[in-house]
Amino acid sequence: MIKVGILGASAYTSLELLKILLRHSGVEVSYLAIRGDGNPAISEIFPGLENRIDIRCANLDKDSIPEEVELVFVTLPPTVAKNYVPNAVKRGVKVVDLSADYRFREKNIYELWYKSVHEDADGINMAVYGLPELFKNEIRNSALVANPGCYPTGAILGLTPLIKGGLISTDDIIIDAKSGISGAGKKPTDITHYCERNENIEAYNVGCHRHGPEINHILSRVSGLDISTFFTPHLIPMNRGILNTVYAKISDGKSVHDIENTFDEFYRNEPFVRIKTQGLPRVVDVVNTNFCDISFTVVRDRVILITCIDNMVKGASGQAVQNMNIMLGFDETRGLL
Amino acid sequence: MIKVGILGASAYTSLELLKILLRHSGVEVSYLAIRGDGNPAISEIFPGLENRIDIRCANLDKDSIPEEVELVFVTLPPTVAKNYVPNAVKRGVKVVDLSADYRFREKNIYELWYKSVHEDADGINMAVYGLPELFKNEIRNSALVANPGCYPTGAILGLTPLIKGGLISTDDIIIDAKSGISGAGKKPTDITHYCERNENIEAYNVGCHRHGPEINHILSRVSGLDISTFFTPHLIPMNRGILNTVYAKISDGKSVHDIENTFDEFYRNEPFVRIKTQGLPRVVDVVNTNFCDISFTVVRDRVILITCIDNMVKGASGQAVQNMNIMLGFDETRGLL
Amino acid sequence: MIKVGILGASAYTSLELLKILLRHSGVEVSYLAIRGDGNPAISEIFPGLENRIDIRCANLDKDSIPEEVELVFVTLPPTVAKNYVPNAVKRGVKVVDLSADYRFREKNIYELWYKSVHEDADGINMAVYGLPELFKNEIRNSALVANPGCYPTGAILGLTPLIKGGLISTDDIIIDAKSGISGAGKKPTDITHYCERNENIEAYNVGCHRHGPEINHILSRVSGLDISTFFTPHLIPMNRGILNTVYAKISDGKSVHDIENTFDEFYRNEPFVRIKTQGLPRVVDVVNTNFCDISFTVVRDRVILITCIDNMVKGASGQAVQNMNIMLGFDETRGLL
Amino acid sequence: MIKVGILGASAYTSLELLKILLRHSGVEVSYLAIRGDGNPAISEIFPGLENRIDIRCANLDKDSIPEEVELVFVTLPPTVAKNYVPNAVKRGVKVVDLSADYRFREKNIYELWYKSVHEDADGINMAVYGLPELFKNEIRNSALVANPGCYPTGAILGLTPLIKGGLISTDDIIIDAKSGISGAGKKPTDITHYCERNENIEAYNVGCHRHGPEINHILSRVSGLDISTFFTPHLIPMNRGILNTVYAKISDGKSVHDIENTFDEFYRNEPFVRIKTQGLPRVVDVVNTNFCDISFTVVRDRVILITCIDNMVKGASGQAVQNMNIMLGFDETRGLL
Repeated sequence: MIKVGILGASAYTSLELLKILLRHSGVEVSYLAIRGDGNPAISEIFPGLENRIDIRCANLDKDSIPEEVELVFVTLPPTVAKNYVPNAVKRGVKVVDLSADYRFREKNIYELWYKSVHEDADGINMAVYGLPELFKNEIRNSALVANPGCYPTGAILGLTPLIKGGLISTDDIIIDAKSGISGAGKKPTDITHYCERNENIEAYNVGCHRHGPEINHILSRVSGLDISTFFTPHLIPMNRGILNTVYAKISDGKSVHDIENTFDEFYRNEPFVRIKTQGLPRVVDVVNTNFCDISFTVVRDRVILITCIDNMVKGASGQAVQNMNIMLGFDETRGLL
Repeated sequence: MIKVGILGASAYTSLELLKILLRHSGVEVSYLAIRGDGNPAISEIFPGLENRIDIRCANLDKDSIPEEVELVFVTLPPTVAKNYVPNAVKRGVKVVDLSADYRFREKNIYELWYKSVHEDADGINMAVYGLPELFKNEIRNSALVANPGCYPTGAILGLTPLIKGGLISTDDIIIDAKSGISGAGKKPTDITHYCERNENIEAYNVGCHRHGPEINHILSRVSGLDISTFFTPHLIPMNRGILNTVYAKISDGKSVHDIENTFDEFYRNEPFVRIKTQGLPRVVDVVNTNFCDISFTVVRDRVILITCIDNMVKGASGQAVQNMNIMLGFDETRGLL
Repeated sequence: MIKVGILGASAYTSLELLKILLRHSGVEVSYLAIRGDGNPAISEIFPGLENRIDIRCANLDKDSIPEEVELVFVTLPPTVAKNYVPNAVKRGVKVVDLSADYRFREKNIYELWYKSVHEDADGINMAVYGLPELFKNEIRNSALVANPGCYPTGAILGLTPLIKGGLISTDDIIIDAKSGISGAGKKPTDITHYCERNENIEAYNVGCHRHGPEINHILSRVSGLDISTFFTPHLIPMNRGILNTVYAKISDGKSVHDIENTFDEFYRNEPFVRIKTQGLPRVVDVVNTNFCDISFTVVRDRVILITCIDNMVKGASGQAVQNMNIMLGFDETRGLL
Repeated sequence: MIKVGILGASAYTSLELLKILLRHSGVEVSYLAIRGDGNPAISEIFPGLENRIDIRCANLDKDSIPEEVELVFVTLPPTVAKNYVPNAVKRGVKVVDLSADYRFREKNIYELWYKSVHEDADGINMAVYGLPELFKNEIRNSALVANPGCYPTGAILGLTPLIKGGLISTDDIIIDAKSGISGAGKKPTDITHYCERNENIEAYNVGCHRHGPEINHILSRVSGLDISTFFTPHLIPMNRGILNTVYAKISDGKSVHDIENTFDEFYRNEPFVRIKTQGLPRVVDVVNTNFCDISFTVVRDRVILITCIDNMVKGASGQAVQNMNIMLGFDETRGLL
């Protein structure tokens, strides 16, 4: 049993990680650390974990990661994670960072959007973007994986095959995204107040959400082009799930069959991507799973992609375990099916 | 007190009409008719109406609209409404039809999309599309008003000023729509089953929803152009509300100020359209009201419009009462503020 | 038009009051005051009020209630309200206080449960408990009405006729209550976080909720007995509505017909109480109305009462307007049907 | 790998069984049968199962259970299950029946409440009530296990220790139950319509729900007494979860410590019962798990028990797998933690 830990154990993504890891037969969670004083049992933070895991939380600032821990998940907020990642890396602990802090190769883009100086240039250089369907080999050999954002995961999985295959125009891509509320985290705010979210839907950060540049950054990298998409996120009254509706112009001469073939070839061997040939993606079909469901519909000269994930699993903790599996030499699907 | 009636009184839109009309000081609901046998009190169908209105339902097929009724709302399903509208018109009763049966001037478009032969050519010719912000004068003098569909209401209100003002390109308009479940009606189906809708979101009828041609039909009529939009509806886990996110290319040389001025001029005197200059439209702000909230955000060469209504009020029964007010000479806002 | 105001205008109950009062043809809201600095327009706090009411909020501590205001609603939290009520009363302004501060005639019970010293003995003495179905005459002549709590409203309306009629035993009454989340107020907390409430139900304050003593206090007062009920509140994932399921032992020799007759006589002339003889109370039937629906079912030697209200209307702001109507000489139902 | 099957594979409980069994390393689902014509792949019925299990459904009436299948789960509705169970038993296939058809030892109680003649007296005689915490030994040696109802599971687990220990009076037990909607099954009805359930709560079958006699039947059996409880179920707007609030009178001379000790002794070795000493049971803590959380609060002379389960797991399919584990000699928790 390989021992793993979590830095930032009081986050929702940490609870989700624990639920997944408790069913993983190859690893044991032996270390949990939180910010702030006190050493609560994790079941005091998440009562549902009582009788399932019995660990007291260490203190992020006072305690060290124990020697026997081979890999840590970092579930700290963006701009905070980068204060703790370098030390873990230095100690030889592998890291899957669920924050945004190591997703950008260009430090200045990160600093612009996250309004925080990034001093860990070594980390940025060594980090691999943890979308296994695109970067599996790099992940396998990496000591620091930057787990993708929830919105980007589906958007990039849907668009990459079509962009790389030259099937769509890259200068007019629209991503209309709808997310459940768990993505907003556990801290009570006006945004997460029940009566503000229930029986409501609203867009937010139109044209200026941080996941827009992340999507552009990765799509540009995989294509070698300079891609700017239009990205509009919305909050939907449900706990989990993200559905992205993506609109793109089909390149001249390309057909629905080209799209079908391209998707089929690209994802044929990927266990967690399902290209739907019947019906459309739905949150109920992916919830509590690591699947990304993708459909495509051609209307006149446009293709309408729909991608759907559980934001807490494929959009966060499940993908993090998928990355861990690859980094530690387990079967990619272990604990995730 | 002018007497009005409802044909199809067991629909959700009928319940909503009754709630609004009970607060309207100028009319009295004196006639309710349903299909099927039996003459239940309306409070047996909708228990919440007990002590508020005490009328037994007549039978649509057996009974006639009483002489004293000056106007009827038709809340029958599409393809059924047109079996009852002609007789009402012939008797001199004014009609606000909430179905789709009289929304299209071109019979063939209707018949194609609703798969039903339409034999009431006179009705089609005399019917006015009941979007008061665009067709108030025609409505005033009309005996048959076709109340708009729920999705089209917001989409058309958002797009018309920009199209008529030449501010956006008309060949690449994307309407990504999100609706609560009440729009699917009262009949239990797989689609309306609680566990299929709750904690779920899904698109449906991508590229082939009937409200797409309705939007195109009206936008083409008001502009004199031939407009085809891309329209994708989604079902969201909430009872009421529709939010449309609309993407359009800004015409060369046009600016955000042109958009602002155009909206301001177009809707300055309209009591039910609010152009948001701060914040974005939200369902919680329009629910149980007849308002349509609209925002615009410019991102590079695109404008992103967001329109938001209560699909049961401005998207159905509230707009029907607004039309009634205009047809009967009441102040347009009576009973609606 | 009589001018009224609201002290504590940023509360959810204030939003609800404004929605009701905007449809009330006899009063005009002319004064709104909030704690804290700044003088925002009320539509900045509640964007849904844009175009409906245009008032800037005054400052509770710095500004005085204007001369022309005849009545104020106090929507401040308990223990805060009593700091502002005495001054209003002294100025001759009538007060409907939606907090708990004037609901108890015995100061010590209040102080025990609300952990706050109450120095306004005059206010306590003059205050009338604002449940119009029980205390209409006192309310009519009162200058200070203590609007009932949301849970107590339904529980007291259901139990009072049976207790006063000697139909049930008073030493074994169980009130199992289920409430929507709006009752928890607008402040973001762990309790009101969307993901903690959605897809969840939990009991809270079992045997020690403040509304338990309020129920006991009023039931004891109306009966002349010393009544202690068992009261268990639960939070349910919905915005609005309270359903109380009440269990009581039927007195020897009393029958279901006695219960029926007693309810009928007690509430025959009350416009807002509906005794259900068919079907059971449901939140959907009372939401956005001032009704309290009540049913009774006899099982062996017990009667099971179910009472149902909209906690924001009959449980708060609607009842407050009902009280206002009585205090100002309007018809009791004005603006509420 | 032991091969198992499901009779009635299109039910929600079947989907839940499949999700659990796909993670169970000791069994393989090799047979699925449905009523009606056609042989759809199970992923056509539940699209979320695509890429996870690939079996076509056999026909319940035409096809036989294959030789290699050692155990079947029956997820058919009550009154239907008993038409298929005898044949399976005769063929030597072990059965876990999730319907109510074999829960009652007294045929006449069953027939009274389920309005259906029961001709399988042998089945009734051999069936064991599948609540493992009470009947583990009988289950271990049984070929036919009647999986408990969702409401009874929590109610019986909460009450049995106190009744057997003589800690509470048995003639005045009140069970106020709140359930999510999945318990109503997959068939679309007025009851399961989204807009009737969302933002609503209502009681149903007050004093006459079929799970009342089931609770009474089992409590009477385990105690040797004749126990009649008061049982009131409510529908709550959420997919999953049942919370029972139970009120009982404490026997003279018994204390909260007796209750605590009794629960501790009774459930000390049970892996799926958690007696909460801090906080109260919540659906979010048990959802997607096989746990039953129980709390007790003493108020004057009453104890208020709260029990909480996921109705689809401990209340149905998880408990069925727990029973299967015991019947097949697996560790009781296999696939369930």
